[in-house]
Amino acid sequence: MKIPEGMKYDEHGLLSAVVQDVNTGELLMLAFMNEEALRLTLETNIVHYYSRSRKKLWKKGETSGHIQHVKEIRLDCDQDAILIKIEQVGGACHDGYRSCFYRVVESDGSLRVDGVKVFDPNQKYNA
Amino acid sequence: MKIPEGMKYDEHGLLSAVVQDVNTGELLMLAFMNEEALRLTLETNIVHYYSRSRKKLWKKGETSGHIQHVKEIRLDCDQDAILIKIEQVGGACHDGYRSCFYRVVESDGSLRVDGVKVFDPNQKYNA
Repeated sequence: MKIPEGMKYDEHGLLSAVVQDVNTGELLMLAFMNEEALRLTLETNIVHYYSRSRKKLWKKGETSGHIQHVKEIRLDCDQDAILIKIEQVGGACHDGYRSCFYRVVESDGSLRVDGVKVFDPNQKYNA
Repeated sequence: MKIPEGMKYDEHGLLSAVVQDVNTGELLMLAFMNEEALRLTLETNIVHYYSRSRKKLWKKGETSGHIQHVKEIRLDCDQDAILIKIEQVGGACHDGYRSCFYRVVESDGSLRVDGVKVFDPNQKYNA
């Protein structure tokens, strides 16, 4: 798959990438891509990101096996965000949950865990 | 609703906010919130953002009427992204579609429109 024309990267050369389970619609994670990560994602159909904290390209699941297989890619109106519908192997979250969004905000500001745990993060610490 | 402790704003004081239709699971948009936008969203149950281009607080639908009613808020593992499940009045996208992600990337890099148009953007140009 080729990179569409007119993508708008931010001042750090990044796009926001939102990742959704293609079957259930569950929001799995939000991360960032530079042009290389986007190119590799489109070429391989395996999701690659750019890690802002580690400042490097990051093939999701490279060490953990928690690969994300691309099924559909959508762009938003501004072309600065990308929606990737995937099939997730294992869990998206390094805390061991299927989704990174595994906590609900309660009215008092506390967080309630509401997510499916799929692996022990102490054994698979590389997301 | 109170702001949870430990939110992680980026160097511009912003969080990523992903917005999903609470009933259908459709991804509607991605935008940014500063602390004030988050506080107003939690206090009023109407989604507020911070516009990076206009550099100001932005109550979604203030002029167009395309209000977003908060039904659930989730945080990701890093607390630098927020998932808001909403009921959307009208459309989320200033191009007139229900979702900003109304274009699918084809294998040759071209974009195919695949979205529900709900209003004429020439008449409602303020998202």
